[in-house]
Amino acid sequence: VRDLIPTIALKKGAVELIDQTLLPAEYKVLRIAKVEALCEAITSLRIRGAPALGIAGAYGLLLGVEEEWRTSGGHYFDENGFVADGFPPAVTADAVRRHLGLVSERLRGTRPTAVNLGWALDRMMDIWRREWPGPAEMLRALHGEARAIFEEDVAMCRAIGRSGAALLKDGDAVLTHCNTGGLATSGYGTALGVVFAAVESGKRIHVYADETRPLLQGARLNAWECVARGIPVSVLCDGASAALMSEKKIACVIVGADRIAANGDTANKIGTFSLALAASRFGVPFYVAAPSSTIDPSIPDGTAIPIEHRSADEVKSFRGVVTVPREAGAYNPAFDVTPRDLIAGFITEQGIVQPPFGG
Amino acid sequence: VRDLIPTIALKKGAVELIDQTLLPAEYKVLRIAKVEALCEAITSLRIRGAPALGIAGAYGLLLGVEEEWRTSGGHYFDENGFVADGFPPAVTADAVRRHLGLVSERLRGTRPTAVNLGWALDRMMDIWRREWPGPAEMLRALHGEARAIFEEDVAMCRAIGRSGAALLKDGDAVLTHCNTGGLATSGYGTALGVVFAAVESGKRIHVYADETRPLLQGARLNAWECVARGIPVSVLCDGASAALMSEKKIACVIVGADRIAANGDTANKIGTFSLALAASRFGVPFYVAAPSSTIDPSIPDGTAIPIEHRSADEVKSFRGVVTVPREAGAYNPAFDVTPRDLIAGFITEQGIVQPPFGG
Repeated sequence: VRDLIPTIALKKGAVELIDQTLLPAEYKVLRIAKVEALCEAITSLRIRGAPALGIAGAYGLLLGVEEEWRTSGGHYFDENGFVADGFPPAVTADAVRRHLGLVSERLRGTRPTAVNLGWALDRMMDIWRREWPGPAEMLRALHGEARAIFEEDVAMCRAIGRSGAALLKDGDAVLTHCNTGGLATSGYGTALGVVFAAVESGKRIHVYADETRPLLQGARLNAWECVARGIPVSVLCDGASAALMSEKKIACVIVGADRIAANGDTANKIGTFSLALAASRFGVPFYVAAPSSTIDPSIPDGTAIPIEHRSADEVKSFRGVVTVPREAGAYNPAFDVTPRDLIAGFITEQGIVQPPFGG
Repeated sequence: VRDLIPTIALKKGAVELIDQTLLPAEYKVLRIAKVEALCEAITSLRIRGAPALGIAGAYGLLLGVEEEWRTSGGHYFDENGFVADGFPPAVTADAVRRHLGLVSERLRGTRPTAVNLGWALDRMMDIWRREWPGPAEMLRALHGEARAIFEEDVAMCRAIGRSGAALLKDGDAVLTHCNTGGLATSGYGTALGVVFAAVESGKRIHVYADETRPLLQGARLNAWECVARGIPVSVLCDGASAALMSEKKIACVIVGADRIAANGDTANKIGTFSLALAASRFGVPFYVAAPSSTIDPSIPDGTAIPIEHRSADEVKSFRGVVTVPREAGAYNPAFDVTPRDLIAGFITEQGIVQPPFGG
């Protein structure tokens, strides 16, 4: 990897994305031409990570238009913009608006906790609700907005990296949770982007990656990204983080976020809260790295953040290997909420900031 | 399961044990006739759990005598005692002592952290070092001592259960870590034995079992034992325990111990320390349940407890499925040390006790 990982891209009327459920064993790019297939990819975590889901949401709306009005052979959108002149003249702007509304609600329901998905869909809605001379102008503007969401994320990740890199010294070890690199974003990363930026500035950093059960995004994806960039990485089971920090090897913990409340309470991948408690015990600074779009000022504190509970099967088996007796149940929240008092600071594209976050 | 799980037994010159690596998918009893095979079973965690390892150590010494001097067709030991009259008359008591010394050191080296293994081997050594008229008398006494170690563990687990059951109320939910039931002991259990005793006294208890990566003893074994006894059980990923306790569903946490220092610092399966930190955050009482033989008064505090680091492969793959890129390393301590300040009390066969523990 030289620069950005091609996590998700718009290609000739379809969305292409790396199937992250297959990594690290297999690198496979999926071509997705239908909204339902994209929803399945999101629900099955073939693509995941709050910023990447924002981009997926915006691209998914364009996909919805393609799917509804595509004519044989042609396409309306690709990586260059709204390219077709042949959008059916009989289709009104209001018909497109109605369809976008339906697609938007379908996409919004796939992952209830990630604020960026809803945020990106709202940005797109702001565009299509305006007055437009006709559908072509509206669609051109929607493509521009979707590209802007992508490009802004690239710029934001770079800026987050710059903001955080100064926290790391040459020779430091950093503990990470879940996947917070290019695969979770437009291609660079948030928490792991801070490490990348430090390494790019010449510092040697060792990454300790929590494996992050049940879906092992840390073991599979953060480790894969570090290896791809030549950064030394060691994986540990989630329960081993307190032991690791007790050996005083860790300069800081940097995690991502799926939603940040106005008071700083932070929803992130399950296991983050335990990590923050261990860091607190050993005086290891615990940072959250995220674009400021992850902050939801309409939510006063963590108690109001909706938490997605996922299928028991994620806990009860692993790639077909049964690990739990059939008769047993499972408790499987996808996220936990780390209270603000355990968080040393929020590394955003605007620098390192502290709550409260205004509306 | 009506009473005791047949975790490990002495049978006609061999040791039989349930291969715990195959549970819950398969229930298979291994017949082991060689010390090296027993060491492999211990190292590979086919049998594990501090009290069970003490029994395995004592039985392993008898196996060593069988293996060295067995004649075709016959055997010296079975579940009933030292049964053969045909022990070779040319073999001196000192020759048996020398061989036992070698076997003992081989067994002792298999798992450095579990104090019960060394404790059981030391108890056996106290027997063979005495003056004996001849090998037959010595071997008869050694069998008696090995049986006593087993029988005492049965009685101790029952007593631990009685000590702890009073802590639980009808309707309580209890959070457990690793396997602490019959499979970890002579057949009943320590921390999970407390739950069994409460259930036997008519209380309804719901068990939440930490899956306990990397080897999933909680998911596979604690859940299997609860199902076998008809106790409702839900499995969670290790990182989810803070979220679970934040929902205030948990009456108490009860874990086992592999070694307890004089000041109360407790080595137990990796992940225990994180659990204790989460319990502390939410004011959930955190108990250690263990036979008093787990207390090592010669060790002043946790810093002096040797911690076994195990193979990276345990973290990097799961039953043949690769979960981590080949180029990545792994941090895989088998145990962590929970500081005494996080422990509400020690549930032993002598009641609920508090450190310091005298020498």
